[in-house]
Amino acid sequence: MSHSDRGGSSAPIIDFRVRPPARGFLDMIMYTSPARRDRFTRQLGLEPARSAQARSMDMLLAEMDRAGVGVGVVQARFSDFFGSVSNDDVAAICREYPGRFVGIAAIDPTGRRAAIAEIDRMMAAGFRGVNVEPGAYPVPMYPDDRRLYPVYAHCEDRGIPVIIMAGGNAGPDVSYSFPVHVDRVAGDFPALKIVVSHGGWPWVSEILHVAFRRENVYVSPDMYLHEAPGWEDYLRAANGFLAERFLYASCYPLAPVEEYAEWFRRLPLESGTRERALWRNAAALLGLPGSAGAAEPATAIIQGKEQACRDWP
Amino acid sequence: MSHSDRGGSSAPIIDFRVRPPARGFLDMIMYTSPARRDRFTRQLGLEPARSAQARSMDMLLAEMDRAGVGVGVVQARFSDFFGSVSNDDVAAICREYPGRFVGIAAIDPTGRRAAIAEIDRMMAAGFRGVNVEPGAYPVPMYPDDRRLYPVYAHCEDRGIPVIIMAGGNAGPDVSYSFPVHVDRVAGDFPALKIVVSHGGWPWVSEILHVAFRRENVYVSPDMYLHEAPGWEDYLRAANGFLAERFLYASCYPLAPVEEYAEWFRRLPLESGTRERALWRNAAALLGLPGSAGAAEPATAIIQGKEQACRDWP
Amino acid sequence: MSHSDRGGSSAPIIDFRVRPPARGFLDMIMYTSPARRDRFTRQLGLEPARSAQARSMDMLLAEMDRAGVGVGVVQARFSDFFGSVSNDDVAAICREYPGRFVGIAAIDPTGRRAAIAEIDRMMAAGFRGVNVEPGAYPVPMYPDDRRLYPVYAHCEDRGIPVIIMAGGNAGPDVSYSFPVHVDRVAGDFPALKIVVSHGGWPWVSEILHVAFRRENVYVSPDMYLHEAPGWEDYLRAANGFLAERFLYASCYPLAPVEEYAEWFRRLPLESGTRERALWRNAAALLGLPGSAGAAEPATAIIQGKEQACRDWP
Repeated sequence: MSHSDRGGSSAPIIDFRVRPPARGFLDMIMYTSPARRDRFTRQLGLEPARSAQARSMDMLLAEMDRAGVGVGVVQARFSDFFGSVSNDDVAAICREYPGRFVGIAAIDPTGRRAAIAEIDRMMAAGFRGVNVEPGAYPVPMYPDDRRLYPVYAHCEDRGIPVIIMAGGNAGPDVSYSFPVHVDRVAGDFPALKIVVSHGGWPWVSEILHVAFRRENVYVSPDMYLHEAPGWEDYLRAANGFLAERFLYASCYPLAPVEEYAEWFRRLPLESGTRERALWRNAAALLGLPGSAGAAEPATAIIQGKEQACRDWP
Repeated sequence: MSHSDRGGSSAPIIDFRVRPPARGFLDMIMYTSPARRDRFTRQLGLEPARSAQARSMDMLLAEMDRAGVGVGVVQARFSDFFGSVSNDDVAAICREYPGRFVGIAAIDPTGRRAAIAEIDRMMAAGFRGVNVEPGAYPVPMYPDDRRLYPVYAHCEDRGIPVIIMAGGNAGPDVSYSFPVHVDRVAGDFPALKIVVSHGGWPWVSEILHVAFRRENVYVSPDMYLHEAPGWEDYLRAANGFLAERFLYASCYPLAPVEEYAEWFRRLPLESGTRERALWRNAAALLGLPGSAGAAEPATAIIQGKEQACRDWP
Repeated sequence: MSHSDRGGSSAPIIDFRVRPPARGFLDMIMYTSPARRDRFTRQLGLEPARSAQARSMDMLLAEMDRAGVGVGVVQARFSDFFGSVSNDDVAAICREYPGRFVGIAAIDPTGRRAAIAEIDRMMAAGFRGVNVEPGAYPVPMYPDDRRLYPVYAHCEDRGIPVIIMAGGNAGPDVSYSFPVHVDRVAGDFPALKIVVSHGGWPWVSEILHVAFRRENVYVSPDMYLHEAPGWEDYLRAANGFLAERFLYASCYPLAPVEEYAEWFRRLPLESGTRERALWRNAAALLGLPGSAGAAEPATAIIQGKEQACRDWP
């Protein structure tokens, strides 16, 4: 099936959160405990991806192709509970599958100088942002923990987007996704572009208020969009004030890349909203070629597999 | 168009929160930063009022006439961020447009004796309540801040309604609208009538729980009723247990008086609920003529433009 | 009307929270202040039960029979505000109406040794769980108060279910139902089966997140299921991931046993979900005969009125 056959929508997809079955990801709990992962997926009302169960990159790439997912955003991670994936592993994955993945850097927030040096190193290597998962750090913290403020300041000053995991199982308990923490960060760093990964779920109305108020806040509900309580409110916001700051992500392997994209394409989104959610918003945020001000058209990105990760993006 | 032409509803309207383009209001951020204001209005899915953009009282009064808004409740304000409007300015507006506006007094909560003296002075001048905006004060505080308790006690003992802004951009972050604060005030002063302005949004279910539990709590979602997440729950409550404690307000100029009233009249509210929300609840709460126990019928209020603010209400 | 006539559903009902008009319950506020109670019931959109107004056990039993409620779970209580009901009173009610009621023990959390001894005494007498109402204790506490942890540990080690009232008027203010407290208990005692009584309302999405994450958490929205804000989310969860951990309860006399059961049976629940909510989940949780691993079929329980409370359960 070609892209143009998909229900009238030919827009390719940037999947904003993908954990491919490769390198350090294979040591994460979502691959080492497949029963746990599959139970989670089924609780969402979805079927686990065959590629996840087979731990097969080839199968994942085929699923991405069939789903029209041109690019997966791959985020390094620093965590005891979930397992860590190094920035170098993510960079290697980007290199090994050129044009298919974009790297996002993880940090250790307990040493500000080393964290900032690592951010600079990875951005120079072609990464496109920083992944902060406060509640998942070995010593859990809230998104507005003072130890993170030098990192936020550094990113704000350099125009580096920060992805904050603040939703779902974001930490030891539900307080770690409480929206006030992200709200404070967004207010204290008004030029810092912040993606709320896992969409602040279950605090849906509350994180939408934060995004309504703070123009630097993007919302990516990830797999919690799939009919978790409040999901319709995400959609309404995406069709309204949040149109330019709503991001699509499967959180593969927690949701299957293919079934999830098919489901998303059938949602009652206005066509402009759908295209923005699937591609344009993420491309502009990450400064990918094909986005506003970039040199290449979007189609070139999908096909530009000769480019190395550090060049593209 | 006469009042009786409006979809079978001839009830006039008390708009519980109006900031007319006059005197001190013109120095508030919502008039000095029209682009910011209009963006807010459009994020709600509404079009800015022409009177707001023209800063024209004549146009506003014409819009109120066309919308059937007989009375606007005008609240003084003490705030750094939003800008302050003095009680004397509000009194002057009430005097200059007799019968069209009702005054509500602002206070400086950091000096209890002066605050109470000011309340008494303004109530003697015809004001009908006190406006408390804890998170917007120069030193932000929560609604249950101890410094506000002497004010609440004074108002409870004298039957003066208190309007607490605890929703939307109620303070530096979303914790300022967290419903526990209003809940505690309502429990600690059970005879104090409290209007939750901005309806506790985005904590919709939570503030409705508070109102379910506390019979002295009124809810005015203001412009957040306009399809913000949770708005249907406000409506259901208005049609149910909250029927006598639900208040209509546009928060003009954040929402346009005319379009907003037209939209509200089309909502699936039971006719008794609509009339209560638009007029009866506010009239009874503020002790306006025409409400239970008052000497004059409601129609007299709309037309009684000869009366001065301090006499009417 | 026989059970098989009820809309195709012949499943009998375990009503997970019933306060019969007998013994110590008659001294509780819900019987001593009937006007308060009836106002509450009507705010929910329900009509007070005639048996409640007449304080008649015979009428209640007839209402239970007509509603198909085979078993009522009766929870002792230790509270100043609501009134206390002793474990011995609950045991007496179970004895006096054999086969119709199951006892749940209350504790005084301020003395851990006495609390644990009392739990052991009542479990030996046939009780089936422990009722913890943190915010309603004479000295209100949160569900994750350290003083409760020895009780939780004792129950976890012995497989005793704990019912935590954490919803509705759960304490002096809405913070007592804040979902983080139950979340922490569930995380700290992963083998402890916890029923969130009053369903964490109004924190509906949030408690569903907790139950999504914690497999040891059961949700019983009780009368707040009756069209309180968020109630559809409870239903969707019951039809989905929560199917085996959703419990039906009227909280009689706050809702009427009969009208409430009729309303519940008409809800759009899948037939498996309905049967689980009405009987199977509670029977399995409490280890009643007829549940998995028990010796007797469910029908025998309804009819087994010859059995004494301490034998059955």
